[in-house]
Amino acid sequence: MTRPSPATPRAAHTATGDDLVRLLPPPPPPRLDSGTVTADPGILAAHRADHATFTPAGEPAALVRARTTADVSATLRLATELGVPVVPQGTRTGLTGGANAVDGCILLSLEKMDRILGIDPVEQIGTVQPGVVNAVFSREAAGAGLFYPPDPASWESSTLGGNIATNAGGFCCVKYGVTRDYVRGLEVVRADGAVMRTGRRTAKGVAGYDLTGLFVGSEGTLGVITEATLALRPATAEPLTAVAFFATAVEACRLIVELMAGEPRLSMVELMDAPSIEAVRAFRDPGFPPGIGAALLVQSDSAEAAADLSAFAALCGRHGAEVITAGDREESRMLLEARRMVGPAVESLGTILPDDVCVPRRALPDLLAAVGAIADRTGLTITCAGHAGDGNMHPTIIFDAGDPGQTALAQQAFDDIMRLGLDLGGTVTGEHGVGLLKRGWLRTELDPVAAATHDAVKRALDPLGILNPGKVIATPEGD
Amino acid sequence: MTRPSPATPRAAHTATGDDLVRLLPPPPPPRLDSGTVTADPGILAAHRADHATFTPAGEPAALVRARTTADVSATLRLATELGVPVVPQGTRTGLTGGANAVDGCILLSLEKMDRILGIDPVEQIGTVQPGVVNAVFSREAAGAGLFYPPDPASWESSTLGGNIATNAGGFCCVKYGVTRDYVRGLEVVRADGAVMRTGRRTAKGVAGYDLTGLFVGSEGTLGVITEATLALRPATAEPLTAVAFFATAVEACRLIVELMAGEPRLSMVELMDAPSIEAVRAFRDPGFPPGIGAALLVQSDSAEAAADLSAFAALCGRHGAEVITAGDREESRMLLEARRMVGPAVESLGTILPDDVCVPRRALPDLLAAVGAIADRTGLTITCAGHAGDGNMHPTIIFDAGDPGQTALAQQAFDDIMRLGLDLGGTVTGEHGVGLLKRGWLRTELDPVAAATHDAVKRALDPLGILNPGKVIATPEGD
Repeated sequence: MTRPSPATPRAAHTATGDDLVRLLPPPPPPRLDSGTVTADPGILAAHRADHATFTPAGEPAALVRARTTADVSATLRLATELGVPVVPQGTRTGLTGGANAVDGCILLSLEKMDRILGIDPVEQIGTVQPGVVNAVFSREAAGAGLFYPPDPASWESSTLGGNIATNAGGFCCVKYGVTRDYVRGLEVVRADGAVMRTGRRTAKGVAGYDLTGLFVGSEGTLGVITEATLALRPATAEPLTAVAFFATAVEACRLIVELMAGEPRLSMVELMDAPSIEAVRAFRDPGFPPGIGAALLVQSDSAEAAADLSAFAALCGRHGAEVITAGDREESRMLLEARRMVGPAVESLGTILPDDVCVPRRALPDLLAAVGAIADRTGLTITCAGHAGDGNMHPTIIFDAGDPGQTALAQQAFDDIMRLGLDLGGTVTGEHGVGLLKRGWLRTELDPVAAATHDAVKRALDPLGILNPGKVIATPEGD
Repeated sequence: MTRPSPATPRAAHTATGDDLVRLLPPPPPPRLDSGTVTADPGILAAHRADHATFTPAGEPAALVRARTTADVSATLRLATELGVPVVPQGTRTGLTGGANAVDGCILLSLEKMDRILGIDPVEQIGTVQPGVVNAVFSREAAGAGLFYPPDPASWESSTLGGNIATNAGGFCCVKYGVTRDYVRGLEVVRADGAVMRTGRRTAKGVAGYDLTGLFVGSEGTLGVITEATLALRPATAEPLTAVAFFATAVEACRLIVELMAGEPRLSMVELMDAPSIEAVRAFRDPGFPPGIGAALLVQSDSAEAAADLSAFAALCGRHGAEVITAGDREESRMLLEARRMVGPAVESLGTILPDDVCVPRRALPDLLAAVGAIADRTGLTITCAGHAGDGNMHPTIIFDAGDPGQTALAQQAFDDIMRLGLDLGGTVTGEHGVGLLKRGWLRTELDPVAAATHDAVKRALDPLGILNPGKVIATPEGD
């Protein structure tokens, strides 16, 4: 990669840096021996944005497909020297614009750093490069008798680097926690290109600050993850699945509050409200009975799964809900498929604006009722499905993006749902992250001192503001 | 509290700050309405140091016993204004000098902020002030049918604020994780006295950087914790206990490697080597058979505890170890007591230097063998007990502090054990923290870039270096 001429778009970002560089003897140019650099307009266009709606994407100057940590380091050294923004990317399955290009940036793809470096059954850890797809790693771990729990909906396509950068969740969090709970150590390249290791390979350790945790969920704004040591668990039993049908989503939520106040030992507690079920029906028949107001899908993978599901059925009986337990693996798969279909089903109905609020569980009935009221008021379809056992729901607004009135209503509904989540004691993002989409709402959720502390941490780790500027933290470059 | 005259010890630290203050109009003095301030020499002397050996303690200028967050904020505002170091303290049960005074400092005790603010059985969280003693909270949670797992050996006297600041571990980590895994959100007072909230009350959340995690384990060097929201679990079954006796500690470790590579579901896996057993015998007879080389104490609190212990016994049988299962609660208590007695027993034998290495589990046999070799070489008694299921052992060197030769040998042995831990792929501290004792070793464990990143984070959150200077991070004030 050669130094850009002043005529390139990134020159706008680098006046001060360039002035300084001209005064100093030229350093040896960083080498990108194995990385592929391209400025092909078609390739850049294909890499400009992630899966988010309503988030702007700028014009990238180049794409670097890193193959080694040295490539990442060289790219960041160069970017620091030139003051050019760098936007790290995996497979761009994110839902907040976190991987969207900013004008004049280097898109730094980690997709080709896709090797599983080792799986250790004795220590129950795996070591991976960031571009390994979640499902590829999960299957490799399963082959060694181990289990990697984090299972975002995108697990067949999203990368572990992206999962770590966004602290991804999924179906299994209700029993097994989120990505953060499985990251023991990282190799990280800082904004200046320096490479460091954080964390440990041991089960415990308190040597110094939890830098590992700081990078988890930082969405590429503090450093670029080039390797991760992930904790694994012993493989579980084949899960049993049941579905319960309720007259209303609020009724289902009342049961969830009672269920989760005990020790349900369930490995999945997923809710689909009536609009979600209707969307799925229009897409592919899930075989649910007609006229139901909500479905609750649960699994147990414990050694006493049958007893767990019996206890669940008994609780449902007390709430007047009908329960069907899957008789075999195929029925189990079909029930799960109904839940997994919500995503593609709603996408087939129009433009979607998926939200990601997480509230205290006891606030779930209020959340569902209020989302229903927002749908009624706006006349828009809002599906509400999600990880109800964790209080984490994905109200998804469906609208016609060609209709300015509907678009305005949809954006208002989106904001109303986030305000609602905060008013109910929750957070504006349970698992999708902040990216571009919610950086304003992050400032609303954080108190001013916490917000200033975020800024201080960002400045400490990325003093030039070149790392994914404008994401999470609104830096001068990104504003 | 009045401003110090230049004659006080802290003036040495504040020349620049004082000069500046003289040039500016005086700000309204921070108020310590409810806090008790004392400079009584006897009280200061009693609060000068924690439970660590071989760590220097300076001369404090004053002790503030905060009763409210406002007291903490006022103290830190004053300290920032005057450039005076502040050393936060709980009940000073730490083992690394982390709570030791530095010359001219304000000792900021959180011990009187000891209220449990709420326990919520539906959300399974508790909210506490930092001075609540672990056991007080654990019992209160148990009264609500809930379980707070972190159980450091000091749990009857150490505070939750201190547990969080050091990311305390304990017996139950092998199944339930460490303190970090239970901290959902914090109220923190920054170095400048500004108050912020971090984290959340919900089960999940990814809104912004994990500042909560950054403060956990930061040992009072980044901010002062004034409130915490802690996750709780449903109460478990009464645990069953068993003990297995081995010819050598290395044999016991080989069994642990095999045990932990499966899913043992044990809630405790504690090892005592022969010197530990001898120390306990000299203190109070644990009723163990004569001539044994190691004891492994295990518990299961699962619904299938009897089956878990049978599986453990079968494994022990294959390793030629004799197993005794406690027949009732009293026998169980007595077995546990034998392990808990290691601490007081070794303290009764001389001056002790307790270490805290954590290694990959497969390295446990090598660790125990090498610690034995260090004991042989130095002629010192080194007991080796600890949380073997996590690979976290506490080799403890016993010596005569009045004998300079023995003292030098003890310090050399201590360093040799930390080097050994690192060479085996482990960490210099599994759960005790860095404090003063290991700040040099932290620099050895961290690579230079990770060390520089620690410094950058410290500077970002504590630009004047007044928060517990010299602990964890060697700041100019603390060097």
